[in-house]
Amino acid sequence: MVYGWDADQGGAVTRDLEDLKGILPPIPTPFDRRGSFARDRLRDNFRAWNRHALAGFVVLGSNGEGVLLSPDERLDVLRAAREDIPDARWMIAGTGCPSTRETVELTRHAARIGANAALVLPPSYYRGRMTREALVRHYAAVGDAAEIPILIYNMPACTGIDLDAGTLVAIAAHPNVVGIKDSGGDVVKMGAIIGALGPGFRVLAGSAGFLLPALAVGAVGGVLALANIAPAQCLSIYDHFVSGRAAEAAELQRRMIPVNTAVTHRWGVAGLKAAMDLLGWQGGPVRAPLVDLTRPEVEELAVILQDGGLGEGEKGGR
Amino acid sequence: MVYGWDADQGGAVTRDLEDLKGILPPIPTPFDRRGSFARDRLRDNFRAWNRHALAGFVVLGSNGEGVLLSPDERLDVLRAAREDIPDARWMIAGTGCPSTRETVELTRHAARIGANAALVLPPSYYRGRMTREALVRHYAAVGDAAEIPILIYNMPACTGIDLDAGTLVAIAAHPNVVGIKDSGGDVVKMGAIIGALGPGFRVLAGSAGFLLPALAVGAVGGVLALANIAPAQCLSIYDHFVSGRAAEAAELQRRMIPVNTAVTHRWGVAGLKAAMDLLGWQGGPVRAPLVDLTRPEVEELAVILQDGGLGEGEKGGR
Amino acid sequence: MVYGWDADQGGAVTRDLEDLKGILPPIPTPFDRRGSFARDRLRDNFRAWNRHALAGFVVLGSNGEGVLLSPDERLDVLRAAREDIPDARWMIAGTGCPSTRETVELTRHAARIGANAALVLPPSYYRGRMTREALVRHYAAVGDAAEIPILIYNMPACTGIDLDAGTLVAIAAHPNVVGIKDSGGDVVKMGAIIGALGPGFRVLAGSAGFLLPALAVGAVGGVLALANIAPAQCLSIYDHFVSGRAAEAAELQRRMIPVNTAVTHRWGVAGLKAAMDLLGWQGGPVRAPLVDLTRPEVEELAVILQDGGLGEGEKGGR
Amino acid sequence: MVYGWDADQGGAVTRDLEDLKGILPPIPTPFDRRGSFARDRLRDNFRAWNRHALAGFVVLGSNGEGVLLSPDERLDVLRAAREDIPDARWMIAGTGCPSTRETVELTRHAARIGANAALVLPPSYYRGRMTREALVRHYAAVGDAAEIPILIYNMPACTGIDLDAGTLVAIAAHPNVVGIKDSGGDVVKMGAIIGALGPGFRVLAGSAGFLLPALAVGAVGGVLALANIAPAQCLSIYDHFVSGRAAEAAELQRRMIPVNTAVTHRWGVAGLKAAMDLLGWQGGPVRAPLVDLTRPEVEELAVILQDGGLGEGEKGGR
Repeated sequence: MVYGWDADQGGAVTRDLEDLKGILPPIPTPFDRRGSFARDRLRDNFRAWNRHALAGFVVLGSNGEGVLLSPDERLDVLRAAREDIPDARWMIAGTGCPSTRETVELTRHAARIGANAALVLPPSYYRGRMTREALVRHYAAVGDAAEIPILIYNMPACTGIDLDAGTLVAIAAHPNVVGIKDSGGDVVKMGAIIGALGPGFRVLAGSAGFLLPALAVGAVGGVLALANIAPAQCLSIYDHFVSGRAAEAAELQRRMIPVNTAVTHRWGVAGLKAAMDLLGWQGGPVRAPLVDLTRPEVEELAVILQDGGLGEGEKGGR
Repeated sequence: MVYGWDADQGGAVTRDLEDLKGILPPIPTPFDRRGSFARDRLRDNFRAWNRHALAGFVVLGSNGEGVLLSPDERLDVLRAAREDIPDARWMIAGTGCPSTRETVELTRHAARIGANAALVLPPSYYRGRMTREALVRHYAAVGDAAEIPILIYNMPACTGIDLDAGTLVAIAAHPNVVGIKDSGGDVVKMGAIIGALGPGFRVLAGSAGFLLPALAVGAVGGVLALANIAPAQCLSIYDHFVSGRAAEAAELQRRMIPVNTAVTHRWGVAGLKAAMDLLGWQGGPVRAPLVDLTRPEVEELAVILQDGGLGEGEKGGR
Repeated sequence: MVYGWDADQGGAVTRDLEDLKGILPPIPTPFDRRGSFARDRLRDNFRAWNRHALAGFVVLGSNGEGVLLSPDERLDVLRAAREDIPDARWMIAGTGCPSTRETVELTRHAARIGANAALVLPPSYYRGRMTREALVRHYAAVGDAAEIPILIYNMPACTGIDLDAGTLVAIAAHPNVVGIKDSGGDVVKMGAIIGALGPGFRVLAGSAGFLLPALAVGAVGGVLALANIAPAQCLSIYDHFVSGRAAEAAELQRRMIPVNTAVTHRWGVAGLKAAMDLLGWQGGPVRAPLVDLTRPEVEELAVILQDGGLGEGEKGGR
Repeated sequence: MVYGWDADQGGAVTRDLEDLKGILPPIPTPFDRRGSFARDRLRDNFRAWNRHALAGFVVLGSNGEGVLLSPDERLDVLRAAREDIPDARWMIAGTGCPSTRETVELTRHAARIGANAALVLPPSYYRGRMTREALVRHYAAVGDAAEIPILIYNMPACTGIDLDAGTLVAIAAHPNVVGIKDSGGDVVKMGAIIGALGPGFRVLAGSAGFLLPALAVGAVGGVLALANIAPAQCLSIYDHFVSGRAAEAAELQRRMIPVNTAVTHRWGVAGLKAAMDLLGWQGGPVRAPLVDLTRPEVEELAVILQDGGLGEGEKGGR
């Protein structure tokens, strides 16, 4: 399967879906002291990320505070990321919005800016009415309109909707819906949808806490907040698994769980950004209503990072 | 307590909070066949609503599909409602957005357009991090910036956050947070916050299913989807209660439950709009990802409306 | 409707279901220091309860730690209660067990001991398979076998099952299922089932926190943990409501909420027993795995009781 | 670590905890047509199970309908199983009861009958009060009193309690609490507790749907309903994993998911027993309130079994 984006916008970029595998960080959006997008800080982070063998990047995901940005800011961040992401790597844009028409529009913009795929949250405000039929229609409308392939973004912690296997299989019947980032952590469901849809449907673990178990049932990689600060470790889990080193993979997987919990479930984006600051990356403040970590929380986080073996060295690559 | 909005925009409108009581419909936003805001259909609905002794209206609430409208559309709907709502009645604008800064901005616009109060949803995308402190900060920021009083909008079915009594009392410490529309249905909590904050804090039932029980513990009225199609019945429950006719109030309350369930939990906005069409109001289509009722669903709804004693007469007033 | 229990066991006791209304405490089971049933302590409590106009008592409910008693202990407690409860008042026995056959057996024992009705929890261990059909069958089997009328005991906080209105109406189709103690607090559901089944189906509020709202929609009384320590106050809320004193009822209802929360949701049976000790009743220890309140918790509870206006005088009647 | 049971009861059985690994079916309790324990049917099943390299058996677990048996029946089933289980294999008895004292008593009986370990559910009726402290006390009391090692049984689908990692680590501080059967399916938690407690703490997957992912993070085996009807397949997943055949393990894991779902989440014990009947084992009826599968459900199940490649051959061993 090969997809391209609108050739009129500057030349076709085609990308083989079989290459969509490995580790991709969902990058945070750095802000300056006044709370505006800090383009230079993002460039600084990319310089370090690009030294690692990351398969690509998700821009404007949950960790990118996408829902807290204005429409114009979203396009600014996408354009900046496009400049910094090498052509050989995936740029995946988070484009899910509350309405179908807004999602279509943002997905089109993302394609024209040069995203290679779109990651689309299920609309969730009217979750009581998001029947299987409503969701199938939504993704079909977006898939029909988009010049780039669509990945489903199952993120129950944020949307309050945990897409079940039957609904996912129904949505995936659309030819332009090609995979999923699943942050729910239900590895039975991951196994079930790979069993039903085959390995061509790209399943990516949505959190480093269950990267290895997801790989074990057939996932092809992960979109991992942890990969922002521990790219080498995330890549090692993946490499150990692919090379058949089960014990090494398990040991590293278990060691990463406390760190990962700190920058996801427990403290979320604010924790991730604080960890970046502690480790020499560009983290900076979150945008309200999110709240930055307190000083005691930062100190606790520093201990967790140290216990997990993370230091400034991660940024340099190894 | 008396609040006014920006005098520079056309003269001060002051409104006594003690008048915030009785029945207010959260109005749907009518669309035309192409899916655009149908201004004339809204006017037609207001002509009928204004024949009833409704205390006011909520614009851009959940039933108004506010989250599915573009920023410009939201202002268009607010301006249209302002034209159609008599000065003697409350116009309350739904202004909750994912980020604090966007909420502040929309609330300011609403005040300048002439809304008498703003109904503010808790931001919910990062619900795992919406601690009491984060929510208190958010409402304080909005309350500080707003020229009009703020009502909390507790709507767990849509936000996935059910604000607890302690958090509500903490948020209400801000002098510009003056009340709540509570759609959660927990009458113990309603009683607890009235007990803690006194009757000056305006508690409005968020659904007609529990209007009477809410009044029994001290709520002052209701913002009721049902009031869009059954204003006379909702007003009667309120009047029976206020006049001490407990048995009549209970009988009518119970009779309204199945109808109310149909246009709220079961079928939501699509059900409400279909009921409006059946009863001679201007309902029309919902916007995707919402899905209109199927024909068999409409037929089932018609039976429920009939069983509840609702007919076209409701529109005419009685 | 009139029900009697097995005449062969000592003379028929018939009781008119229309008399099932008002306030009934679900009594705790007192233990001595070694953890055995303290029969004399129970008698002491009954001496005080019987000075109040309570409609009756529930024995072996959740507050009676019924599930923590051995089969023999359960019968001992039922026999003791039967001795202490005046014939003119209701004795309702909690008889729900995990299996249908055990529930049938305990219900028969309770009837022979002299209980006037049985309060039956839905079996909940295999909750994923407790379909409407399974529950209808269970209650029908119990209702068929029982010589006394059956009340459904909806207690989601303990069973994890919140029986919906449709299931309740289906279960109530059995002629020997005559009412419900609903501890879920969903007053819309209470209104819906009274609307569907008529006032002959006896709906009792399961917690004092929502007594008044439940009465407002048509409940006939309440089975209230709070009535163990504040019988006069619970009776006053009921009397105010019945006599049309809405404001007095609301004020007292709101005042009781913090006390009620302390002895239910927050600290449960251990809180109730500690409150009894503080107020001059026979409380005593709970049975493991329940844990008694710590000293700081008892001190906090004492303040809550005082703020609610409760003192030793409650025990004396007034 | 080596544990023995009461030598006075017939000779010490010691068993090395390092041997607790591999696949163990949680066996159903067969009933005859009148609903009584069918001892002969159980023997027949054991004859077939014993032809497979199963590490042992769980008796009176959720699939054993333990909570639906009388105290005497439970001992009968334990004694029968003890006769049929070869000495070289583990016999683990489900002994969790609502009260601590009853759990202690049943655990002692189980040890004297010859169980090698006890699987103890958290008491769940008063789940709102099952704080970490209450649970630590409960397991400590049982661990102190038991002559056999204790395994925690985390079964949120039945208890409504999902023990978190911190609570599990706290409970495991007791020297006689040696492992867990985790049916919750949260592989992050499994990884976290193995990381915290080391591989000496025996983690067993509680359902075949996530056997492979659990093994990947360090679980040592599984207690799997599916192993009752597909012992060879469950053993193969385990063997493939241990031998480093990741792709074969994943393929078989994915193939087993639909079958496993049918006999667990979807239809539970009734589904498992129906599958046993279809595949030549002794299944038979469930006990009320459980409900046997309808004929159309049995037909659907037959197709699922066939699609999963299961036939009567499984019983014969291969």
